[in-house]
Amino acid sequence: MSGVASPALDFYFDFISPYGWIGAERVGPLARRFGRTVEWHPILLKMTVVEAMGLPPPLLTPLKGAYMRRDIERCLRFHNLHLSPDARFGFSPLKAARAVLWAQAEAPDRVEPLVLSLYRAHWSQGRDISITDTVLDSAEAVGLCRRAAADALDSDRFRDAPKAATTQAMAAGIFGSPTLVIDGEPFWGADRLPMAESWLETGGW
Amino acid sequence: MSGVASPALDFYFDFISPYGWIGAERVGPLARRFGRTVEWHPILLKMTVVEAMGLPPPLLTPLKGAYMRRDIERCLRFHNLHLSPDARFGFSPLKAARAVLWAQAEAPDRVEPLVLSLYRAHWSQGRDISITDTVLDSAEAVGLCRRAAADALDSDRFRDAPKAATTQAMAAGIFGSPTLVIDGEPFWGADRLPMAESWLETGGW
Repeated sequence: MSGVASPALDFYFDFISPYGWIGAERVGPLARRFGRTVEWHPILLKMTVVEAMGLPPPLLTPLKGAYMRRDIERCLRFHNLHLSPDARFGFSPLKAARAVLWAQAEAPDRVEPLVLSLYRAHWSQGRDISITDTVLDSAEAVGLCRRAAADALDSDRFRDAPKAATTQAMAAGIFGSPTLVIDGEPFWGADRLPMAESWLETGGW
Repeated sequence: MSGVASPALDFYFDFISPYGWIGAERVGPLARRFGRTVEWHPILLKMTVVEAMGLPPPLLTPLKGAYMRRDIERCLRFHNLHLSPDARFGFSPLKAARAVLWAQAEAPDRVEPLVLSLYRAHWSQGRDISITDTVLDSAEAVGLCRRAAADALDSDRFRDAPKAATTQAMAAGIFGSPTLVIDGEPFWGADRLPMAESWLETGGW
């Protein structure tokens, strides 16, 4: 091997997306198998799907909504992820996203555990991660400083950071959660992970 | 085994959908592995996606359109299906769908070869399957009577059959191509076939 590290994989996700949760649980181990790291990019689906693409939220779309509820439950069971009966759709992921962007700047090695802690807090434990205290509980649980996290969530620096990150993601063509980008090649959907794995194995086809 | 045959798998597809082509190529062998047959249901995505769900055609949706073009080409390469440079999107699948519904009534064992011949004629050979002659070429190529097919395509009985089939499919919650229904469980997307396979193996989870 040369001394040049392989480029990181870019992983885009929204905490409101249970498919994003499936992707988040799997992308770290996948990247490590191929000697890669992951850049974690929280995005806001409300900005991409509703505002930029002009679509209704998928769960409120006729026919698709009912299917998706069934598919989400089935996909989580397939991946052995427990879905809390208290999990709900359509909450604000803003504070959780701010915390991730702050951790990225302050303690990059804590980002993956923080993302997983937040996803599990909501989808598996039914906790409300739209509120500050729950987000701080996750930050603390993964070894981050609760007070520093609280300051960051309230700061001018991080208030609009999720929107800015989403704008930047859209400029790169990203719109869905999860999206994994491997050396410039985007894979949208947790169901594209087997294909992404093949891409990593073969270098593309 | 008891003498009772396992119920057929229901496969819904639109010829305008290249993901439907991937599904169509794979569902027959999959069903046979599990001793099942396939009921082939042509549907009209224009009725489901645009009219019933109120969405723009996916390829004309901002951000998603560009991604999908790339994903379609990549998925076809992944499944070793050749995409003709003359293949195009948004043609009328009505005559091809009528031919399938006619074959279903007249020669059920010719339906799978006919569906595959029509899909390949367009997507792999770049032929225009919105016109009668091309549809009749496929019918003839799989052993069906060209003149009987021509009469059926022109008949009152089959003129509105694709619309009626789509209305019936939507009443069962179907909206996308491909959708495979296994014992009442719907799997939308060619990317759900591995999960569908697991469902067949295990009886569900």
